[in-house]
Amino acid sequence: MTMLSPTARGYILTLSCPDRSGIVATLSRILFEVGANITESQQYNDVSSDRFFMRIMFDIVREGQSEADLRGVIADVAENLSMSYRLNRQSYRPKVMILVSKFDHCLVDLLYRWRIGELPIDPVGIAANHPEEIYRDIDFYGIPFHYLPVAKGAKAEQEARILALVGESGAELVVLARYMQILSNEMAAALSGKCINIHHSFLPGFKGARPYHQAYDRGVKLIGATAHYVTSDLDEGPIIEQDVERISHADSPEDLIRKGRDIERSVLARAVRYHIEMRTVMNGNKTIVFTS
Amino acid sequence: MTMLSPTARGYILTLSCPDRSGIVATLSRILFEVGANITESQQYNDVSSDRFFMRIMFDIVREGQSEADLRGVIADVAENLSMSYRLNRQSYRPKVMILVSKFDHCLVDLLYRWRIGELPIDPVGIAANHPEEIYRDIDFYGIPFHYLPVAKGAKAEQEARILALVGESGAELVVLARYMQILSNEMAAALSGKCINIHHSFLPGFKGARPYHQAYDRGVKLIGATAHYVTSDLDEGPIIEQDVERISHADSPEDLIRKGRDIERSVLARAVRYHIEMRTVMNGNKTIVFTS
Amino acid sequence: MTMLSPTARGYILTLSCPDRSGIVATLSRILFEVGANITESQQYNDVSSDRFFMRIMFDIVREGQSEADLRGVIADVAENLSMSYRLNRQSYRPKVMILVSKFDHCLVDLLYRWRIGELPIDPVGIAANHPEEIYRDIDFYGIPFHYLPVAKGAKAEQEARILALVGESGAELVVLARYMQILSNEMAAALSGKCINIHHSFLPGFKGARPYHQAYDRGVKLIGATAHYVTSDLDEGPIIEQDVERISHADSPEDLIRKGRDIERSVLARAVRYHIEMRTVMNGNKTIVFTS
Amino acid sequence: MTMLSPTARGYILTLSCPDRSGIVATLSRILFEVGANITESQQYNDVSSDRFFMRIMFDIVREGQSEADLRGVIADVAENLSMSYRLNRQSYRPKVMILVSKFDHCLVDLLYRWRIGELPIDPVGIAANHPEEIYRDIDFYGIPFHYLPVAKGAKAEQEARILALVGESGAELVVLARYMQILSNEMAAALSGKCINIHHSFLPGFKGARPYHQAYDRGVKLIGATAHYVTSDLDEGPIIEQDVERISHADSPEDLIRKGRDIERSVLARAVRYHIEMRTVMNGNKTIVFTS
Repeated sequence: MTMLSPTARGYILTLSCPDRSGIVATLSRILFEVGANITESQQYNDVSSDRFFMRIMFDIVREGQSEADLRGVIADVAENLSMSYRLNRQSYRPKVMILVSKFDHCLVDLLYRWRIGELPIDPVGIAANHPEEIYRDIDFYGIPFHYLPVAKGAKAEQEARILALVGESGAELVVLARYMQILSNEMAAALSGKCINIHHSFLPGFKGARPYHQAYDRGVKLIGATAHYVTSDLDEGPIIEQDVERISHADSPEDLIRKGRDIERSVLARAVRYHIEMRTVMNGNKTIVFTS
Repeated sequence: MTMLSPTARGYILTLSCPDRSGIVATLSRILFEVGANITESQQYNDVSSDRFFMRIMFDIVREGQSEADLRGVIADVAENLSMSYRLNRQSYRPKVMILVSKFDHCLVDLLYRWRIGELPIDPVGIAANHPEEIYRDIDFYGIPFHYLPVAKGAKAEQEARILALVGESGAELVVLARYMQILSNEMAAALSGKCINIHHSFLPGFKGARPYHQAYDRGVKLIGATAHYVTSDLDEGPIIEQDVERISHADSPEDLIRKGRDIERSVLARAVRYHIEMRTVMNGNKTIVFTS
Repeated sequence: MTMLSPTARGYILTLSCPDRSGIVATLSRILFEVGANITESQQYNDVSSDRFFMRIMFDIVREGQSEADLRGVIADVAENLSMSYRLNRQSYRPKVMILVSKFDHCLVDLLYRWRIGELPIDPVGIAANHPEEIYRDIDFYGIPFHYLPVAKGAKAEQEARILALVGESGAELVVLARYMQILSNEMAAALSGKCINIHHSFLPGFKGARPYHQAYDRGVKLIGATAHYVTSDLDEGPIIEQDVERISHADSPEDLIRKGRDIERSVLARAVRYHIEMRTVMNGNKTIVFTS
Repeated sequence: MTMLSPTARGYILTLSCPDRSGIVATLSRILFEVGANITESQQYNDVSSDRFFMRIMFDIVREGQSEADLRGVIADVAENLSMSYRLNRQSYRPKVMILVSKFDHCLVDLLYRWRIGELPIDPVGIAANHPEEIYRDIDFYGIPFHYLPVAKGAKAEQEARILALVGESGAELVVLARYMQILSNEMAAALSGKCINIHHSFLPGFKGARPYHQAYDRGVKLIGATAHYVTSDLDEGPIIEQDVERISHADSPEDLIRKGRDIERSVLARAVRYHIEMRTVMNGNKTIVFTS
């Protein structure tokens, strides 16, 4: 039985369930009864789906309260309310696998944020469809690297290897950090809800190939990037975060790509942060993001 | 005894109290007991002041539940928790008095938002230190206008007249829509917490006179505006909202003033909206703003 | 012969021509020779179309220099360089016709900016497909109002009346201030380059009807608006200006519409300003915008 | 005599001089005479100082035109017009020395942009007041590192060593990438116009120590960063670039510091880019920035 140490008593609970009266009262009562002090909470009632969503941060302040008991109490409530939920310690660091292709700006940015302690993740692997020498200028700090080329006609095989890596490494989140391969429907389904992609475009603006060139040809005055959960349609998953930057007629496609790099890396980093802080809940083809 | 009609059953409750365990549990329990369904809630625990802040939106779904009973129950809890609070119907439209000087862009913008039903306020008066003919191009839609010039050496008298107007009209909020008079400490104190000012500068950058000329002289690349609650120090009240716009070396002071108008009116309108939707709670010299 | 008065000696020249060596040298020489002092100039060489674009502001500082002579000199150069150009006094106020449907926020905003002298235009008419009583709360300040309903099967006739109004009034710019009628190809062609539309969406994101509801359904995190020149494809004209605002899952379609109003009016106002300050030059399906 | 090769014929010229009639005509004539094709130009007439500023990009398209002759012609004009100027090839990569203290996010970001070829600089040294082991996780790619501790009472000596390094390495630009030492007036004067600092605050908001804590205490809703040229007053040099990010009451000082890192690195990178692309000209205590 795990006894809560004075330094590891914070939890985060996210949940969703059919909307009905008394959910908050029930949850706050049982949390009170197990000695929890709620420090932050946010909720959202989605009228169109008639579902209730909540994120609660709390500290167990009662001496001797066991985690097993806490989990049991919450499991009981979840069954009563037909509630799906996730419960983690606030100190929890999810295992993360990063997939990358040639462009490394998102990868380098994530590694930096991890190295200085900004992003509380545990990187368990980096996988690429390009060989390691492409990344010779990047310090992987001992994170295992996997070269997984996509041989002609062997895409299914390569994807199976990725999924095997995810399974073996225990990765709870897969980040597509400018991984330029279209995932198969099977692969996307297997990673559904635990895989974040950065789309180098302001969706739903420019789908498909070379979005910055599309933006240039169209003469838009703002370009953007979109981070979203992966679903079977690579460009249509629930959006987590987006941002834009101003451009002008004088910006060449290369300028757009350069400005795009900055937006992409910051949008992806924010989306990953929201996910690991359990601020996101998928709601059909949308994402609820409980930002502070 | 007011019986809640089917169309007027929504309430907003904001509160603050010393932080302690069980506040959320207590509040959600008593709200459940009076037949309330919480539809939105946000909270904040301020570690530095050890105070707890919350905003709850709820619907009374129980047939026959009286408002008097609801208010009694909440008053009891408030006493137990040393809690200060405000409770209003969601349909509530506060009475608002607008003070203005020569520049009318904020006034015109507020009136427009009110006229099209965007801003649920009840304007009970417009007061100015300039005569009504200055505003001859503006349609006041029957809102009473008061010309309150500041005669030399008679500022106290003029302020007394404003406070009298506020009292007689029942105004619950006073908006300084580019009202270019420095309030006396007494006046500011009398309006504390119920008066919003728009400062035509990005605080704490440029206080004092002619901030856009100061910004021009300093060569800044962004200008901004700040909406804040009025306290005795006119430029130092708790900030509600701020925004900025990009400028360049080629912008003249007149360009800055023009761009500033757009920021000022939108920042002020957002601050007023946050206030009337009861999203704001003052916390010493800061404002907690529960945005969605 | 018009002699340039001391107060009306500023000019703006915009031009485009096939790119070649010596254009700037030629232009600045002939401007020097007619006693002009260049106070601002910007240029752009479009590599893909191999065309040269320029905007020059200058003051005629020579006593007695006639405008006819200035125009003659520039016409000669234009012929030599196969140049298309526009030359106006800086004090010039173009005649503008505004078309509107039910939503009046863009109209009211333009009128306000005109009234306080921010937007140097000369409004010669307001036309709507709704009767005047819809706008009874708006002061038109004597600008002629034209009710031009679109009778079933008589769209061509209505458009002919609009074009007639444009012709009779001498309007040099037509602003579609949320005018919710699809223009026919003929009408769009007739107004090409002299008509600005505000599209209540961040193009190329959500075309077609009800873009804010589309944005809501898609779960995007930013909404925007686009001002563009009208061409035969209503949503595909050369973009002049765009902007966005952040939204969250908690924003309803109504919230999006509300936030959209603010973006729409400011994006449209900026686009109109760029046009009347002659900062825009159409370049195929794009717009060059010489901002300061 | 350097003959211009087909691939290295682009130049950038920036200049400032007392304003007078005919400057543009003179410059474009002599550039035409030496076989130059102007591809981009921007100018600014500062009314308050009565000075003229210009940035011209041009290609030498004449076969056999020597650079020495080009420089001679420009030097002659400069003397006639009392003009100060800089002339560089567009392919020019300035030598840059980077100074850093404990926080490495700006340093790492600059090195990344340099490594992928985004920032055309030639880093000739990294100097720090902390020993190299502090930066053991950063790959310096062979750039010489200099540990220059500030011994008590020996600040002048340390600064002399920095200036010596700058001199020996031929560094044309010194970047203070979160270098947390106050420069002496002598040092600042020695580096004037060739040293860019990133101030971790939105100037003129929060000067002095711990600006993010100051921002937190003041309850502002936006934080920002400022890049500026170094002058004797460390926080008051001519501003090159600024940006902000939105914060809320729920952001702790640590959150502000985290968000601040992102703004600081991007603002500094943009300022360095503007400088090395010769888009900046100092104008007293302001900076003219010719952005595209």
